[in-house]
Amino acid sequence: MFPGMGAPPRTRLPTDERRAQLLALGRSIFNERAYDEVSIDDIAAAAKISKGLLYHYFPKKKQIYVEVVRAAADELIETTAPVAALPPDQRLAHGLDAYLEFVDRNARAYVTLMRSGVGTDEEVASVVEGTRMALLQRILVDGLGMPKARPLVRLALRGWIGLVEAVSLDWIDHRELDRAAVRALLAASLVSTLGAVAALDPDSGLPGPP
Amino acid sequence: MFPGMGAPPRTRLPTDERRAQLLALGRSIFNERAYDEVSIDDIAAAAKISKGLLYHYFPKKKQIYVEVVRAAADELIETTAPVAALPPDQRLAHGLDAYLEFVDRNARAYVTLMRSGVGTDEEVASVVEGTRMALLQRILVDGLGMPKARPLVRLALRGWIGLVEAVSLDWIDHRELDRAAVRALLAASLVSTLGAVAALDPDSGLPGPP
Repeated sequence: MFPGMGAPPRTRLPTDERRAQLLALGRSIFNERAYDEVSIDDIAAAAKISKGLLYHYFPKKKQIYVEVVRAAADELIETTAPVAALPPDQRLAHGLDAYLEFVDRNARAYVTLMRSGVGTDEEVASVVEGTRMALLQRILVDGLGMPKARPLVRLALRGWIGLVEAVSLDWIDHRELDRAAVRALLAASLVSTLGAVAALDPDSGLPGPP
Repeated sequence: MFPGMGAPPRTRLPTDERRAQLLALGRSIFNERAYDEVSIDDIAAAAKISKGLLYHYFPKKKQIYVEVVRAAADELIETTAPVAALPPDQRLAHGLDAYLEFVDRNARAYVTLMRSGVGTDEEVASVVEGTRMALLQRILVDGLGMPKARPLVRLALRGWIGLVEAVSLDWIDHRELDRAAVRALLAASLVSTLGAVAALDPDSGLPGPP
């Protein structure tokens, strides 16, 4: 499950390596169990280090969790990065597919983050909101070529990200449709919503509906 | 602020009346302050009753809160009920306007519910999710005349409700657009998303894009 766990216990590792090891371990633990079900002792036991040593790196469970969420957010941003070599319409499909693949692979952690109380912790919430803003900005800049969008365009995109999250959570729960069908729905709802915005606000700078 | 608060303190009221009074008071308090900032003492003081008497009705702050959320959810469902006398397209606009008017009037409480930890409490979350399902079912039955929708239709509507919530929260935060503009965005995104679903799933039973 965790690379290096086969190594002899209580090996001394350099600080950075130990932190990285603990974060990878924390991520795998938080992806298997709800936040409230994980104790700092569980993490120390899984890492085969003393609670005191774990405490040295992360004085509180929430600090590990915040770092785990931050690392996951970084990965999400990277994995969904637009592939410049693809034509624009395939770029959207590719990015959405990467998003859903990430959700699928981290399903439990995604639900914990979006639905449990810890997701509303100020620090955790700011990582989540920062990720949304990064995705929104990317759509504006890379997707639409309009870094300064009008309020209705920004609001529509913010809403669409809410749609993506609600669809992702429902998809994880029900699994009635395959990823390609969900991706097609998300892509079509973005294109059609932007088309609707173009019709509502002729000065939006968006191309109208086809 | 609260009807009856001008009456002499510590009046004996019938049980139902007292409960209703406490709930109305709780609602007004929770709409002004975040959940964590309100104590059971604050509520007792505002109601001009002893903490012991309050305890008799609601042993815990969360119980008042759950009832307050339930009452607010009932009001939301009622206030957004489709007006049969209106033509279908105006029914949507009317319902959305009522939703946004409700959000506007209960802005602080809406944010507390959707963004704070208490919103993820199991009991509170089930009221919220139940409200979403009631709205979804209403769109299916009254709006589309399809009580048994195919998975893609249901998923799209669930996503659109996520869009409505994200837009509402952003609108409350920024207030850049008036309610009519936001309502038009929500209506257009629903119509266009359903049009997109019709194109993706020819067996959906939905009319295709105009």
